Amino acid sequence: MTEAIPFDLPGDDLFGLDNLPYGVFTTSGAPDLHRIGVRFGSHVLDAGAAAEAMGSAHAELLKAPTLNPLMAAGRPTWQAVRADLQNWLGDPGHRATVGGHLVPLADVTLHLPFEVADYVDFYASEHHATNVGKIFRPDGDPLTPNWKHLPIGYHGRSGTVVVSGTPVVRPLGQRKPKDAPAPSFGPSQRLDIEAEVGFVVGTPSAMTTRVGRQDFREHVFGVCLLNDWSARDLQAWEYVPLGPFLGKSFATSVSAWITPLEALEQARTEPPARDVPPLPYLDDSGEKDGLDIRITVTLNGEQVSEPPFSAMYWTAAQQLAHMTVNGASLRTGDLFASGTVSGPEPDQLGCLLELTAGKGPFLSDGDEVVLTAWAPGPNGTRIGLGEVSGTIAAAPAE
Amino acid sequence: MTEAIPFDLPGDDLFGLDNLPYGVFTTSGAPDLHRIGVRFGSHVLDAGAAAEAMGSAHAELLKAPTLNPLMAAGRPTWQAVRADLQNWLGDPGHRATVGGHLVPLADVTLHLPFEVADYVDFYASEHHATNVGKIFRPDGDPLTPNWKHLPIGYHGRSGTVVVSGTPVVRPLGQRKPKDAPAPSFGPSQRLDIEAEVGFVVGTPSAMTTRVGRQDFREHVFGVCLLNDWSARDLQAWEYVPLGPFLGKSFATSVSAWITPLEALEQARTEPPARDVPPLPYLDDSGEKDGLDIRITVTLNGEQVSEPPFSAMYWTAAQQLAHMTVNGASLRTGDLFASGTVSGPEPDQLGCLLELTAGKGPFLSDGDEVVLTAWAPGPNGTRIGLGEVSGTIAAAPAE
Repeated sequence: MTEAIPFDLPGDDLFGLDNLPYGVFTTSGAPDLHRIGVRFGSHVLDAGAAAEAMGSAHAELLKAPTLNPLMAAGRPTWQAVRADLQNWLGDPGHRATVGGHLVPLADVTLHLPFEVADYVDFYASEHHATNVGKIFRPDGDPLTPNWKHLPIGYHGRSGTVVVSGTPVVRPLGQRKPKDAPAPSFGPSQRLDIEAEVGFVVGTPSAMTTRVGRQDFREHVFGVCLLNDWSARDLQAWEYVPLGPFLGKSFATSVSAWITPLEALEQARTEPPARDVPPLPYLDDSGEKDGLDIRITVTLNGEQVSEPPFSAMYWTAAQQLAHMTVNGASLRTGDLFASGTVSGPEPDQLGCLLELTAGKGPFLSDGDEVVLTAWAPGPNGTRIGLGEVSGTIAAAPAE
Repeated sequence: MTEAIPFDLPGDDLFGLDNLPYGVFTTSGAPDLHRIGVRFGSHVLDAGAAAEAMGSAHAELLKAPTLNPLMAAGRPTWQAVRADLQNWLGDPGHRATVGGHLVPLADVTLHLPFEVADYVDFYASEHHATNVGKIFRPDGDPLTPNWKHLPIGYHGRSGTVVVSGTPVVRPLGQRKPKDAPAPSFGPSQRLDIEAEVGFVVGTPSAMTTRVGRQDFREHVFGVCLLNDWSARDLQAWEYVPLGPFLGKSFATSVSAWITPLEALEQARTEPPARDVPPLPYLDDSGEKDGLDIRITVTLNGEQVSEPPFSAMYWTAAQQLAHMTVNGASLRTGDLFASGTVSGPEPDQLGCLLELTAGKGPFLSDGDEVVLTAWAPGPNGTRIGLGEVSGTIAAAPAE
């Protein structure tokens, strides 16, 4: 079996030794046995079985049915496990042992890799917030007065976070066009995407304590791609004054692969200059807290946009500091997303609302949306993020 | 031991045989053993131990460390367990057996009785929404145009839902008075309460399905009192356009006792007349979907308000139907709260913002707030809801 495994991946493979994202998989032979997998090229390493075979002290964590125990174990453990994996897959001397635990990607089913605790969605792209503000509030300033003082965010629905590939059923709900006298009920007619990057909390924190911006790497385990499906008509009618609710809560898709933050060290970059000085707890002057992640959005196989994550005004480290500055705790499995990633250019917008200037067309039944992304890795390599895909299914009967 | 137990409670006891709320407790002798307790007068029945002693088929569910397995078991099981409990505690023939499993309330520590899945907070009192709208948006209509068409709600932070008695640490955050040029950072100076009723989901539902208003009793296990602590200054600065976030997420207190919905049958009442006809999925004409729960708010032992839950415009059944109409799933442990309960009278307002017309005083360090409530039970009895209390602790260092 090991003969068939391309241990020496081509240098441009997006899932080489410098990446090694984590997921959870089953095989058709054992459909109920959820196992932690590590993506390596076009194979998946059964991490628990490999750890056991290698006599690893971390075998128990890696034999869990979700990533949560590993995520809860903290950064020193994440680093030790990652070093082990790179050794096992990189050292030719281990191939005979680990080769038997590599499964072709095509032979596995991927699952939601962690149990989501709280889900928070931010609104951190100045370009997106400006574009949307113009569409939703044409009579006011596009950016609200607070926007450059704090990373605006809100809680979303954890229970409807689904893994890439899950069909997205068009939601029913109330819509009221501006000139209609009353709302009507029916399928959303303005179903949209939001291309985002999600951050997954590993190390928890206690209530009444704060997690500073500088402790970001102690708490955040990894990164996923995220599509925050949005029913714009439901959202527009419901969101004043308490924010988005049903326009978002029907489904949020995440990639099956969680890229360790360690794999994105080379992608660190300074965020854009802030024209309003942030308060001290958000001040990151001179820090490379941004991430150079390049997203591609495809609709039915056609590329529609390339949102640059490096253009985000607020960083994930600032978001973490803000989210806990009031003493709110973190739990293992907390997921916080960037908000729609939009750049300054017309081909860098992260949702159809912006790409079509609010006019549509929006998503039709049967449409498939795929987000992919990569970031610079060491020595000119590229680190691929897991894709997040979804196909729109027709609304249920009213 | 049984001699000391007043099995024959006075008729006006708020926690008699027609109530029997569920909680989770430990004793000093076994501080790590979380056990399901049922409140009976001023005692707590160790439900798992009693069920085992009685040879109950439900002993396994009742020996769990949280209510979640029982809640997930569904309404027929809830009814069977409740009938058993009423029999065990009500039939003198069982006293010798169950008496040994009754612990004085004073000897137990109560814990958060269930694992919170998603937490949603509504905004269902017309009086509250009108009063707050006038304070937060003095230049606009107090009620937004959508208010009478749908029960407005938003997701809150599940991870900071705490049990009654947990100290509430004053949150730090950004505040910007209207006339200040920029926000400042520091302890909230407008810390408030919100007296609410919470509903706890037992039976889950699948994504892409809807739970109709009429299926409310199949899915909702029980009711708690809830204090949605609110930092009004943080909230006012942050909430446009995506809703409340840090102004609420530092702590939400719930009562240690979950009153079974079955215990509130006599409290069912028709909600107030709606002056805007709701869409069919929200239409409850002629249905007694309201609940006559009478809340008392005390501040440092002094009664400050008596909010009447029967005055709520939107019912919990409508909220459940709305929350799932877009295909969002329900999970066991989902908690949804009514929003602040305020009646039409000045002594019926559910938060200090309303009670002081926005001017304060708000909460000082050391202040203790206690919410209690009762509802009519059978034969003139009263059903007590568990109290929810909290004392304000000073903010941490900046």
